[in-house]
Amino acid sequence: MNIKLIYTRLKADIDLIEQELERAVGSSSTILEEASVHLLQAGGKRIRPVMLLLGAKFGDYDIHRVKYVAASLELIHMASLVHDDVIDDAVIRRGKHTVKAEWDNRIAMYTGDYIFAAALECITQIDNVEAHQILSHTMTQLCIGEIVQIQDKYRYDQHLRDYLRRIKRKTAILIAASCQLGAIAAGAPASIHQKLYEFGYNVGMSFQITDDILDFTASEKELGKPAGGDLLQGNITLPVLYAMEDREMRAQISSVHAHSSREEINHIIDRLKNSDAIERSHVLSRRYLDRALKVLNELPPGRHRNSLRDIAYFIGKRKY
Amino acid sequence: MNIKLIYTRLKADIDLIEQELERAVGSSSTILEEASVHLLQAGGKRIRPVMLLLGAKFGDYDIHRVKYVAASLELIHMASLVHDDVIDDAVIRRGKHTVKAEWDNRIAMYTGDYIFAAALECITQIDNVEAHQILSHTMTQLCIGEIVQIQDKYRYDQHLRDYLRRIKRKTAILIAASCQLGAIAAGAPASIHQKLYEFGYNVGMSFQITDDILDFTASEKELGKPAGGDLLQGNITLPVLYAMEDREMRAQISSVHAHSSREEINHIIDRLKNSDAIERSHVLSRRYLDRALKVLNELPPGRHRNSLRDIAYFIGKRKY
Repeated sequence: MNIKLIYTRLKADIDLIEQELERAVGSSSTILEEASVHLLQAGGKRIRPVMLLLGAKFGDYDIHRVKYVAASLELIHMASLVHDDVIDDAVIRRGKHTVKAEWDNRIAMYTGDYIFAAALECITQIDNVEAHQILSHTMTQLCIGEIVQIQDKYRYDQHLRDYLRRIKRKTAILIAASCQLGAIAAGAPASIHQKLYEFGYNVGMSFQITDDILDFTASEKELGKPAGGDLLQGNITLPVLYAMEDREMRAQISSVHAHSSREEINHIIDRLKNSDAIERSHVLSRRYLDRALKVLNELPPGRHRNSLRDIAYFIGKRKY
Repeated sequence: MNIKLIYTRLKADIDLIEQELERAVGSSSTILEEASVHLLQAGGKRIRPVMLLLGAKFGDYDIHRVKYVAASLELIHMASLVHDDVIDDAVIRRGKHTVKAEWDNRIAMYTGDYIFAAALECITQIDNVEAHQILSHTMTQLCIGEIVQIQDKYRYDQHLRDYLRRIKRKTAILIAASCQLGAIAAGAPASIHQKLYEFGYNVGMSFQITDDILDFTASEKELGKPAGGDLLQGNITLPVLYAMEDREMRAQISSVHAHSSREEINHIIDRLKNSDAIERSHVLSRRYLDRALKVLNELPPGRHRNSLRDIAYFIGKRKY
């Protein structure tokens, strides 16, 4: 089925979530609203809310309960983007740290904090303690993921399991929680929402691996930035780990450091793209996707299961 | 009664809260633990947990429920300190923005995020949706308070009501929520926990006004930093607002800007200290304290009410 059709079918409900998002970031502070509004307008695919809605279809679907949980998940995603921006902003302006830049960063940090808090305020509108627990646990794991990612930068002695644990926390858990929380908010039994969690987790792993592959293989136009940004920033992703199994490549890659130039990187990227690292990464991404589809088959069949399958394919196999 | 005696009586329960705090910031990330541990060791007066415990005494006191709420409140306070440090760090190192400084700031930002999330994970251990709602609402208000404070810096056209609204969000609401949440966690009736909120709110207002006075009147030794820091940083506090009612002072004060030197400030501080601004600020702080004590008298009499009264006096009238 076409992804667009899934969105079209859910449009009225997605609109209600958008309203909830607007209400949540609306506040009595003008500056806060201004800082948040571009995030809302930027939109994005709202992939987490959509998966959440589909998860809720396995229970007693009531959009007027589910919308709070969906908005809450999207707010957490938005907040983490805002805090990523704080960091990126600081990098770009390094050495030219004007008062204005600092002001912006302060505002950005507290805006992120506010959106995090608003996410929790939003979910507490449904009286389901389990949902509150899962959401706050997801947040702590997400934060640990961010910290470990910083900690592991330019560390060439790491293993596949370090990478997998990192992307689990950074990406997969939030998608897993989205699928699960939909079902929980709709009162689906534990056997259902645990499977949805597992489905979302595997989709999320596949998604992040694909993302990490695309950072090497997509064009600058598709990425909106030059390829190889992860390597340049010291993020050791799956293709890099595979490439480093070759001794010569390992020596080259591990010479990359915080002050490496784009030129030094480009040579490595070319070699990496011509190695089997990309193909092997695709294989692992595909394996997670297969696991996701296998779990999905254990859920009650029907239109919603088919929609989740289509989204999983769409996410895991996207070209950019 | 002596404040020390209150702490001594509550010692066993405070120790349980400390254990909960340690557990909450303990995680699988070494760097995160390292970043949090100095916060815990620094300790502090744990004034919010103590007020929360006393609030809980008005209900069916069970430390094994209440401790989660108390730890949660203290974690929010800690998280906001971490994020304040991110900002301060950036100011101190302005123009010398090394990779290390940036790294630290990243870690500090995500550590704050983590502690925020841990606070919520902690409170969701009690199955009381009202408590979850109050905590997340307190957090959103706190964040708005932080943002408005940045927004209002060096803005000399503001009024008393701007200041009061700001300190309400920045300080008073968290203390109010502490007193209230204790009673809620202990299942006290709404009539009780609403009065405790009102009590905490007024104590918090008095506390912050006293804090803002001390920033002018305390010695460098007492403050751990030179006096007048607020004015230098553009925070328009109550003594400043009162002082600006004098036309000449208003002209001097409103010449202070982001690049003003310590010398320019010192002259203004001396004049302000010799004006009636300090005494008038004390009067307003005292008025909030009186309101707090008035509300307190509407609560059931006994040892716990007396303890709250003593803490209110201690907080409102402290010399540094």
